[in-house]
Amino acid sequence: MMANLFVIGPAGSGKSTFTAAFREWMIKNEYEAITVNLDPGAESLPYLPDIDIRDIFDLHTIMDEYQLGPNGAQVVAADMIANVVEELKSEIEGYESDYVIFDTAGQLELFAFRAASKFIVDFLGEERSMLAFLFDPALAKSPSGFVSLLMLSSSVYFRFYRPYINILSKVDILSDEELQNIGEWSQDWNALYLSLLKENPGMHKELSIELFKALENVDVFRTLYPTSARMLYGYEDIYNALQMISAGGEDLEKR
Amino acid sequence: MMANLFVIGPAGSGKSTFTAAFREWMIKNEYEAITVNLDPGAESLPYLPDIDIRDIFDLHTIMDEYQLGPNGAQVVAADMIANVVEELKSEIEGYESDYVIFDTAGQLELFAFRAASKFIVDFLGEERSMLAFLFDPALAKSPSGFVSLLMLSSSVYFRFYRPYINILSKVDILSDEELQNIGEWSQDWNALYLSLLKENPGMHKELSIELFKALENVDVFRTLYPTSARMLYGYEDIYNALQMISAGGEDLEKR
Repeated sequence: MMANLFVIGPAGSGKSTFTAAFREWMIKNEYEAITVNLDPGAESLPYLPDIDIRDIFDLHTIMDEYQLGPNGAQVVAADMIANVVEELKSEIEGYESDYVIFDTAGQLELFAFRAASKFIVDFLGEERSMLAFLFDPALAKSPSGFVSLLMLSSSVYFRFYRPYINILSKVDILSDEELQNIGEWSQDWNALYLSLLKENPGMHKELSIELFKALENVDVFRTLYPTSARMLYGYEDIYNALQMISAGGEDLEKR
Repeated sequence: MMANLFVIGPAGSGKSTFTAAFREWMIKNEYEAITVNLDPGAESLPYLPDIDIRDIFDLHTIMDEYQLGPNGAQVVAADMIANVVEELKSEIEGYESDYVIFDTAGQLELFAFRAASKFIVDFLGEERSMLAFLFDPALAKSPSGFVSLLMLSSSVYFRFYRPYINILSKVDILSDEELQNIGEWSQDWNALYLSLLKENPGMHKELSIELFKALENVDVFRTLYPTSARMLYGYEDIYNALQMISAGGEDLEKR
């Protein structure tokens, strides 16, 4: 009865910090959870991963071995993960943990838009997987940045067709007003549309109100879960979403 | 009367190859064009850039100097470009070239979703800039991959609000059937919708036909320009689009 959470998002959105904090919350609440680091280029992580792709290979080794620069090595490394999924899977199963939190590559597109990633999620994930897309508050606080993140998140959603949640990370760095705006935009396409027009007065003819209406229909405007690792805030909601998916509504046995 | 083209796209979509081929086509047709490499992590380029960010700093130096891994160094490097835009601008102006082709960072999100990039385009680009987003055929040939690229492209579009074209690169690696499908999807949301349903039969209730209609309205379904660097094919259309923007329809003086 394992449930997987793949933590994804652009560089700087706080994936590793989220992974560490969610794991901490889970343990504190007596749920079994392990962490898997899937970023071969991770330098220092704010948690000690139970399973670590870097124990199999890391970016520096690939750069040396294949005589590649960082760009090329990242792409090769992202693709190489597909070759070791069986090894990862048997390691994960060895833990017999209820919840598995996957921290993914620093750059979103290495995970989201390389062919290997869909294979990895399908193979490791089977039925009970959810993707969590992190909204970086530095981008999300402007209307155009927020729309970009919505679209970016949708682009990942259409790639995986998995249960999917959007998470606003690091809410502690936002002012009350910023947080309120973001909350409003995430629930009301019309409010977002009006803010976007206000930010870009010359641009309205290029923006179709139809698009915003439609985004609501396609459930892109799903709940945006606010979290703060610093305040260990918001993780119960993430757990509830994950648990709904993993057990079809039934709570997994507390241990 | 300078016109700028920023070449963007996910890793592996062929940005540098496009830059090289477009430059070659321009010179062959007696247009003045220079190339600017904005990727501090580029290893070997298929062209000799006239201006090269690596002459100011490169990824290896940043890794050494700041004791960072490749992930961290890429983010720092992306942000550092903002500090040297005046230097780049005066170099570019020194060439007095009609067209400037910018090859951007290997990973799209380093260019598209870091705060510095919007500043760079605004500062270097002024009025006469266009963004060219490359569709990688390996992703574009499946319906879900195509939709993901459309969304990803939209996410960049909403970030910059600049004249914008979508380009299908490397068409020579596609079969006639694949190319025909992609062509159809890019012009007809209904065809795309039906192909997507066929690819993911269980998923139709999550897909709103409204979204696809709306994407057409918002001009995401703009022309997708097919190109092949190997066959030096498709560049006249790119030139025409760039020239329309740069001169408001007037051809720049041939030299």
